[in-house]
Amino acid sequence: MELDLLGTHADRAYPILASIVTPRPIAWVTTLNRDGSVNAAPFSFFNVFGANPPLVVFAPGDRSEGVPKDSALNCKRTGEFVVNMVGEEMGEAMVATAASLENGASETEQAGLQTLASTVVSTPRIAGVPAAMECKVHSIQEIGENRLIFGIVHRVHVADEFFDKEKLRVIGEKFHPLGRMASPNFYCRTGDLFEMERPD
Amino acid sequence: MELDLLGTHADRAYPILASIVTPRPIAWVTTLNRDGSVNAAPFSFFNVFGANPPLVVFAPGDRSEGVPKDSALNCKRTGEFVVNMVGEEMGEAMVATAASLENGASETEQAGLQTLASTVVSTPRIAGVPAAMECKVHSIQEIGENRLIFGIVHRVHVADEFFDKEKLRVIGEKFHPLGRMASPNFYCRTGDLFEMERPD
Repeated sequence: MELDLLGTHADRAYPILASIVTPRPIAWVTTLNRDGSVNAAPFSFFNVFGANPPLVVFAPGDRSEGVPKDSALNCKRTGEFVVNMVGEEMGEAMVATAASLENGASETEQAGLQTLASTVVSTPRIAGVPAAMECKVHSIQEIGENRLIFGIVHRVHVADEFFDKEKLRVIGEKFHPLGRMASPNFYCRTGDLFEMERPD
Repeated sequence: MELDLLGTHADRAYPILASIVTPRPIAWVTTLNRDGSVNAAPFSFFNVFGANPPLVVFAPGDRSEGVPKDSALNCKRTGEFVVNMVGEEMGEAMVATAASLENGASETEQAGLQTLASTVVSTPRIAGVPAAMECKVHSIQEIGENRLIFGIVHRVHVADEFFDKEKLRVIGEKFHPLGRMASPNFYCRTGDLFEMERPD
């Protein structure tokens, strides 16, 4: 099947791309609302794009036509955000925070999530996640209707059980965050691992 | 464990980020070498970032300090590339194309891969993959030492077995591309699916 995403099938571009480009990592992003409460929302148009500087990008869309989601507004105002990774046991809590609440309402409060203070940003991270990354906004780019937020990762927190302190490495054999699969509702567990040696 | 990626642990930023931000989708990118042969290489600093216009981004690093990888050089010269998604049965072939060959040598020839003509770009796609996306380069951005290639997806090919022609949707229950897990050598299968309904 061949699809023309700029022509005949343009109205299907979102679900088709969001089903094909899988598995996607999930950024469970916390930001600070204007009143100081904590916003949380999941985004899977997200990835790391380099280490020097440590760079992540995520794309929060619009809440409604022309109105950016709270996460985007908060990033712009505060210049910071935290990416929390999602372990299997927190999947339901993560999905619950995808709800559109009243402007400025706190998903973390509504979902009963605990938060922890961050080190270099004012935005708290979510307690109990396997890893979290404290980020400062590098830039925000709009390409057509798409909005990309670029962040520099200043601090990383990894739960001790997933980190080898001697080798300073994440224990890949144990670290299995949830992945996002086909639109609209599929997710995957990532414990079905295998190794393939890459050639030099 | 807390890590300072701009300070004490800067030299560990790459393996740590490439282990935490998982599972990552894999773009098996084909480009045209100067002599017309086909270059293929896998990149997992990659994702879709929006549908209007249909936007993907991937980050090919340097071949050696200051020398971009062939994929990046080819994208810049030709203004196009194809993203092939990788089914489980083609994992070994994909990893084999991660080798650094002589400048301009063809990984597809070396790996014995068959290619098919694309529709709107000159760069062929790889035969036998579950899906492929014909892309034109939107822009190339360098942020520090990181190089991001932005592409607009003009055409999508999906193998018939994974596409519902009536509903014009990818059959998420069947479509399970490989994912990239922790650095350096972990991959995951994505057949361990489940559904979680997202709130409105």
